[in-house]
Amino acid sequence: MLDTLIKNAVVIPMTEPGLVLYGASVGVKDGKLVFVGEGEGEAREVIDARGRIVMPGLINAHAHTAMCVMRGYADDYTLQSWLFEKVFPVEARLDERAIVAGFTLGMAEMIASGTVSFSDMYFCQPAAAKAAERIGMKANLCNAVIALGDGYDFDADRAVIETRRLLPEYGGSGRIRADVAIHAEYTSPPDIWLRVHEWAQKYGVITHIHLSETRTEHEEAKARHGMSAAAAFEKYGVLDTPVLFAHGVWLEKEDMRILAAHGASVAHCPVSNLKLGSGVADVHAMKEAGINVCLGTDGACSNNSLDLFEEIKLAALLSKGKALDPTALPAYEALKMATVNGAKAQGRGGETGMLAPGFDADLIMIDTSKAHMRPLYDPIGAVVYSARGSDVCMTMVSGRVLYRDGKWLTLDIEKALREVEEYAVPIVKNGA
Amino acid sequence: MLDTLIKNAVVIPMTEPGLVLYGASVGVKDGKLVFVGEGEGEAREVIDARGRIVMPGLINAHAHTAMCVMRGYADDYTLQSWLFEKVFPVEARLDERAIVAGFTLGMAEMIASGTVSFSDMYFCQPAAAKAAERIGMKANLCNAVIALGDGYDFDADRAVIETRRLLPEYGGSGRIRADVAIHAEYTSPPDIWLRVHEWAQKYGVITHIHLSETRTEHEEAKARHGMSAAAAFEKYGVLDTPVLFAHGVWLEKEDMRILAAHGASVAHCPVSNLKLGSGVADVHAMKEAGINVCLGTDGACSNNSLDLFEEIKLAALLSKGKALDPTALPAYEALKMATVNGAKAQGRGGETGMLAPGFDADLIMIDTSKAHMRPLYDPIGAVVYSARGSDVCMTMVSGRVLYRDGKWLTLDIEKALREVEEYAVPIVKNGA
Repeated sequence: MLDTLIKNAVVIPMTEPGLVLYGASVGVKDGKLVFVGEGEGEAREVIDARGRIVMPGLINAHAHTAMCVMRGYADDYTLQSWLFEKVFPVEARLDERAIVAGFTLGMAEMIASGTVSFSDMYFCQPAAAKAAERIGMKANLCNAVIALGDGYDFDADRAVIETRRLLPEYGGSGRIRADVAIHAEYTSPPDIWLRVHEWAQKYGVITHIHLSETRTEHEEAKARHGMSAAAAFEKYGVLDTPVLFAHGVWLEKEDMRILAAHGASVAHCPVSNLKLGSGVADVHAMKEAGINVCLGTDGACSNNSLDLFEEIKLAALLSKGKALDPTALPAYEALKMATVNGAKAQGRGGETGMLAPGFDADLIMIDTSKAHMRPLYDPIGAVVYSARGSDVCMTMVSGRVLYRDGKWLTLDIEKALREVEEYAVPIVKNGA
Repeated sequence: MLDTLIKNAVVIPMTEPGLVLYGASVGVKDGKLVFVGEGEGEAREVIDARGRIVMPGLINAHAHTAMCVMRGYADDYTLQSWLFEKVFPVEARLDERAIVAGFTLGMAEMIASGTVSFSDMYFCQPAAAKAAERIGMKANLCNAVIALGDGYDFDADRAVIETRRLLPEYGGSGRIRADVAIHAEYTSPPDIWLRVHEWAQKYGVITHIHLSETRTEHEEAKARHGMSAAAAFEKYGVLDTPVLFAHGVWLEKEDMRILAAHGASVAHCPVSNLKLGSGVADVHAMKEAGINVCLGTDGACSNNSLDLFEEIKLAALLSKGKALDPTALPAYEALKMATVNGAKAQGRGGETGMLAPGFDADLIMIDTSKAHMRPLYDPIGAVVYSARGSDVCMTMVSGRVLYRDGKWLTLDIEKALREVEEYAVPIVKNGA
């Protein structure tokens, strides 16, 4: 007996370039995909997916989810003012319940726009982990070590304390996982990197790092280390375990070679990189170099949404605009970044990001009946260039439906919105 | 007695930078705004706009609306293949009923995503005008003259025949207007420009022209005329009446000076310019030069949507990314391009694009209750950086509600979708 049988769907399995299955079925049992394409069987629930596209759920490979409490609070500032006058002062005063409220609102937004799994770097992750467990998303959570100032005490660092708590509990497997994180080259010295790297080795987890986001940051690293940040991380062995870098806007050819040689991933965050005036990462060159390039939204305070459909379309558009070549980063490749490549970056390569037997049933349905989705000549192009997050009509993680037809089934949206207003907004408003 | 009284709204009137009115009312009578901000009165209908933003309806200053019959039909092709192997062969065989079906679908999409008025360049405009009249949008319609080949006969050109029919009927005033159009510098010689310009003078209408969209086009114009296309249009007097140029991606400083000196407008089409690999227009330089810069979606075949919210956000993002400066093109300025500046480009400056007494009641309501719109610190930033077309919950043109809560009140969406499938899709599918 199947748990769920989806029938009459247009399926984009993401198992091979351009493949689309029409009038297809998907069977789900015990959280796993049993068949994709053809198949029959009795099922507890049968979903008629006529007029709908079924595809892998999206993977947000770089998020600061709880930052949606600051959504729209500090637009159009210079990076320095944004960080030092707006974001950091507020973050210093956000307490756990404010952060968990924001984290929950962010998950609600991601679920409703088709994201099933995300890699999150922020504070209060043990509490966030409980919320993600309860609500049913997949998440790789980390709190990044920032070791600045003479008085820095590793053992007293909240990020260290949280990481030490998370690693034994979640480690590198399961629906919720602990990653480790070096915030960035410029916020800690190499001896700290070594300590974070030790965790990565011991627990077999991913190291999440901001890399070469701005030109200033990239150039200053070279002055400090006599080599780029990417080369410095390689020198100290950080790349010997799997690393997920965010941004990589200013990476040079040699940096890309280094990342590719170590099998590192880069989460491209095009909206945030433009909004903060950081620049446009060279996705084409990174892919050519052999880097696994995935997609992230970054925080809602520099975006201001967590809708991966925007990132997918913008990634495809920017690659074309940058190369002055409309064939650059075609639709399938852009979609692969948000599915297959994201899964790989999270260490979930055999588990999610594709619709194939044996994979977790992490899938979304997209309504193709609306005016802006019609006519439908090419479902892959329609998902990339026409769809938006609001066209998602179902989100399933490990066989469990988290969202359907505008309703969240595992979270109380009114409560989430109320808690953000009550716990977080007053702190943010006093922050400037 | 008012026709409509909107109460308890957050109003963005777009009458001065950053102005937001809270708990505000809007009074509508005989298609006009009677008051905006404070005001009372009995009304046929009272709308409680609590939790909603009320702002001017958006203006799409460059569209080929009926091209949505080709939405997603030819993605990721080189510009030459896209035009000559895909678009032109199909367009040669699209008949009037296929075009009107596409035009209607495009209007449905625009209305649902908050657009109240658009400037459209395409075929079969007399029939399209009837559809726009019936459905209630504002439109500036033109069919562009393309005069290529030895056998070109001006009087037999369908664009000329249609223009001659439209001008006396619609001219330069009213809800539906006729514009005249030169397709582009490279598709007609100056003697043709003079004939189009005569119409513009005689009827007091706007001339709509594609300008310097691609680098090749821009450079070839210089080789052909010994001067840029902008300078050539100036030389032949085309700029002596109001001109709405589309794209302007490759304009040089001197071109911008010329356009500004003549009060010309440029419709920036960022999605299309990226998707076709044309490049990124320098909005900052155009604005600095004094050009009225507005926004357009271009056709859905190079976009693939007609959602101006995408263009607004992308315009703001690209300006920041291009300048490596997050303060470039702040939210209010981006929103102004899609409202105030668009109205001016259409010759509707005192009529639409702002909420102020005496203006037509062309307004939209945006739902701010959804997860991705919360919290709401800054309504202008929220509209620009967080909202998408699907957040529009009401669209009103000249006091008439065209769309409310997912339903079109003046068009039959099922019929429109059916007619596109029946009349247009078979022609497109046979087109390659």
